[in-house]
Amino acid sequence: MRFESLIEDYNEALTHTGVNGERLARRLYELSKIGLTKDGGSNRISFTKEEQEAKNLAKVWMQEAGLTVKEDGAGNVIGRLEGASSKAVVMSGSHLDSVPNGGHFDGPLGVLAAIEVAQAWKDTDFVPEKSYEVVVFSDEEGARFNSGLTGSQALAGTFDPSEKKKLTDSDGKSFEDVMKENGLSLSSLQSAARDFSDVDAFVEVHIEQGKKLEKENLPVGVVQGIAGPSWLDVTFTGAAGHAGNTPMDDRADALVAAGLLIAEIEKLPSQFSSSAVATVGKLNVTPNGVNVIPGEVQMSVDVRDIHEDKRNALKEAIIAKACEIAEERSIKVETKETLSVPPINVTEKMQQKAAAAVRKVVNREPYFLPSGAGHDAMMIGKKTPIAMLFTRSRDGISHNPAEWSSLNDCVHTVHALKHLLEDLCAE
Amino acid sequence: MRFESLIEDYNEALTHTGVNGERLARRLYELSKIGLTKDGGSNRISFTKEEQEAKNLAKVWMQEAGLTVKEDGAGNVIGRLEGASSKAVVMSGSHLDSVPNGGHFDGPLGVLAAIEVAQAWKDTDFVPEKSYEVVVFSDEEGARFNSGLTGSQALAGTFDPSEKKKLTDSDGKSFEDVMKENGLSLSSLQSAARDFSDVDAFVEVHIEQGKKLEKENLPVGVVQGIAGPSWLDVTFTGAAGHAGNTPMDDRADALVAAGLLIAEIEKLPSQFSSSAVATVGKLNVTPNGVNVIPGEVQMSVDVRDIHEDKRNALKEAIIAKACEIAEERSIKVETKETLSVPPINVTEKMQQKAAAAVRKVVNREPYFLPSGAGHDAMMIGKKTPIAMLFTRSRDGISHNPAEWSSLNDCVHTVHALKHLLEDLCAE
Repeated sequence: MRFESLIEDYNEALTHTGVNGERLARRLYELSKIGLTKDGGSNRISFTKEEQEAKNLAKVWMQEAGLTVKEDGAGNVIGRLEGASSKAVVMSGSHLDSVPNGGHFDGPLGVLAAIEVAQAWKDTDFVPEKSYEVVVFSDEEGARFNSGLTGSQALAGTFDPSEKKKLTDSDGKSFEDVMKENGLSLSSLQSAARDFSDVDAFVEVHIEQGKKLEKENLPVGVVQGIAGPSWLDVTFTGAAGHAGNTPMDDRADALVAAGLLIAEIEKLPSQFSSSAVATVGKLNVTPNGVNVIPGEVQMSVDVRDIHEDKRNALKEAIIAKACEIAEERSIKVETKETLSVPPINVTEKMQQKAAAAVRKVVNREPYFLPSGAGHDAMMIGKKTPIAMLFTRSRDGISHNPAEWSSLNDCVHTVHALKHLLEDLCAE
Repeated sequence: MRFESLIEDYNEALTHTGVNGERLARRLYELSKIGLTKDGGSNRISFTKEEQEAKNLAKVWMQEAGLTVKEDGAGNVIGRLEGASSKAVVMSGSHLDSVPNGGHFDGPLGVLAAIEVAQAWKDTDFVPEKSYEVVVFSDEEGARFNSGLTGSQALAGTFDPSEKKKLTDSDGKSFEDVMKENGLSLSSLQSAARDFSDVDAFVEVHIEQGKKLEKENLPVGVVQGIAGPSWLDVTFTGAAGHAGNTPMDDRADALVAAGLLIAEIEKLPSQFSSSAVATVGKLNVTPNGVNVIPGEVQMSVDVRDIHEDKRNALKEAIIAKACEIAEERSIKVETKETLSVPPINVTEKMQQKAAAAVRKVVNREPYFLPSGAGHDAMMIGKKTPIAMLFTRSRDGISHNPAEWSSLNDCVHTVHALKHLLEDLCAE
């Protein structure tokens, strides 16, 4: 990432009320150099020296912004500003780890936006009523252990040591050994659980990772909820046979059954919810030979919605369709749910507060959109009301070196975050 | 294979006019012991000592039947009986190699039936007008080099040394080195090309490898033609994307396109020919991740019919459907034909001769059926008129230890073959 490309189209008029676009760009650029790949992407895998180096930079910037910094037993970095008059706390943050050869905005923008608000307050001599905490969550992406949200799970007290204990990275190193290398342990992770009784709200800024805001021509949008995935494993078992010798009307072709189900799955989500999606991402054929009728097909279905009841109804409809297709064709079908994460609701009140903040920044009616992907806010949302602001992503690309949000869009989002936090801190 | 299970239901009345069911059973059993697998299957891979051992046994039986035996430059074993008065030749035979862990009838039955007719003639002091040749073709299955019909290609003079030269077996041994181990060479294979000007006909007995005769409750049927496969490679290229963040109406899902095509392909063959079939046997998804919209799907389509024009029309219809689906969805599609083997016609005259022979053995109107799989007769059919007789297969199973044809059905087929050969040799 070139610093020049970050600031070349920047509208200087957006630098006001303490928020400084050039500073934000400089910090995005500084972070981008840690773990930079030959494709220009980011390789800041969790629990490596690159993630630690990025967290160390964040600590420096937190201190510059007047925050008191500590690192908890999960490796989360927490910077705190004491409120003027209230014991209550409002939090904001995101993560600094990336997927392998990922982008430079997914995570860092949320961390830097939260720090930028503290810096703006300091530079304009503003002290909020409530205390303010900025959090850098460790291991959100989960690229190293194929499991993520470690830091936010630990902070929310939903961390499951027995699950993490089973994990090994691609070098065969266990989760516990890697924790040890980082001066952490399963018990330190458990001790990171925060008492949320004094926390009034958590706000996360994140890039959209989709194209809705781009289509709406809007820099920033209000998240309605975070869809929780339900994963199904569907296995059709028919009968393998010779592709030449088996007449069409005497087949039990598992792949034809799968093909019909795939075609049906595409049509179902809109019947349940405008925000629901369903995806067959993985499909394996056995024996997978050119001249052999497929005897078995195993496929995955990823079903999501921000409304849990609608998501579950959609999932049941997919299972029913699979059974119907199998029955018509004398094929066996087995379905198994392998993952079920409840969606996280953003309350109407929090959505309206976020919308009010966005309205002050963008001269248009705020746009509401679901988050299909999971975020740290999902874990924190189990403990306290959350809000999320999405920043427009160019071409909807993420987890890729081409991931990009314009500096203008990023600064618009910081202004909206600042309005929202001032509102939440003032109550 | 137990000898007892072969003969337990045998109807002794079928042993007459020189044809001996117990002898046939004994020989099927002797062959089954060569390369017997722990599952009770056959592992007689081409160009191994097992295939050679089986061919050596066949040579002994040919000599017992009064044939003069030679092995040609392709490893084909040819036993010849001089005709009484004509210079013309009629041939019959099949192969003795198997697929890994295959069955005991696919190949051996055709070889032993052809020998049994010669033995019956000898035992009844019959000498046909024309000369008679029994052929054991080498490497029909092609399991070793993923390419087959080597012996019949060589005999028919359609052997392509440049193609075979590229092949290696699973141990990395080249085709040429394996030939050398067998005392053969690319040039000896080429020299095996026979002059077919004196050959009037070739007849192959084979198990059906399908369930049609079983459904018709008939021991033996008349083959109408051998379907030639056309193989298509179809690649859909859409756009990979996050399964959670990409709305259903903003996707270019390559697997949905593939699913729709698979569902359509099943419906198409019957629109072109009652004997046509089309199979998607192989399908690979990229990146094949549970939460990623498939960006690319590569699939194979195996299209067959005994009528070349109808097969090609079906193939074109599949390509057109693939393009139509792709166009509707802003997905790219590429199709490539990777194999095209012309179907082999069995002339009306040869079908009627075979039917007349079957009519003498089975007290019912003969049943005509296509061969979906390739056989040595396919290659020989390029040089001389062919006929094929199919023997009923239990449950249509083949290429499997469970492959089975009852001895009664096998002997019925030998009688039909004998009638047919006597007809063809008398002309």
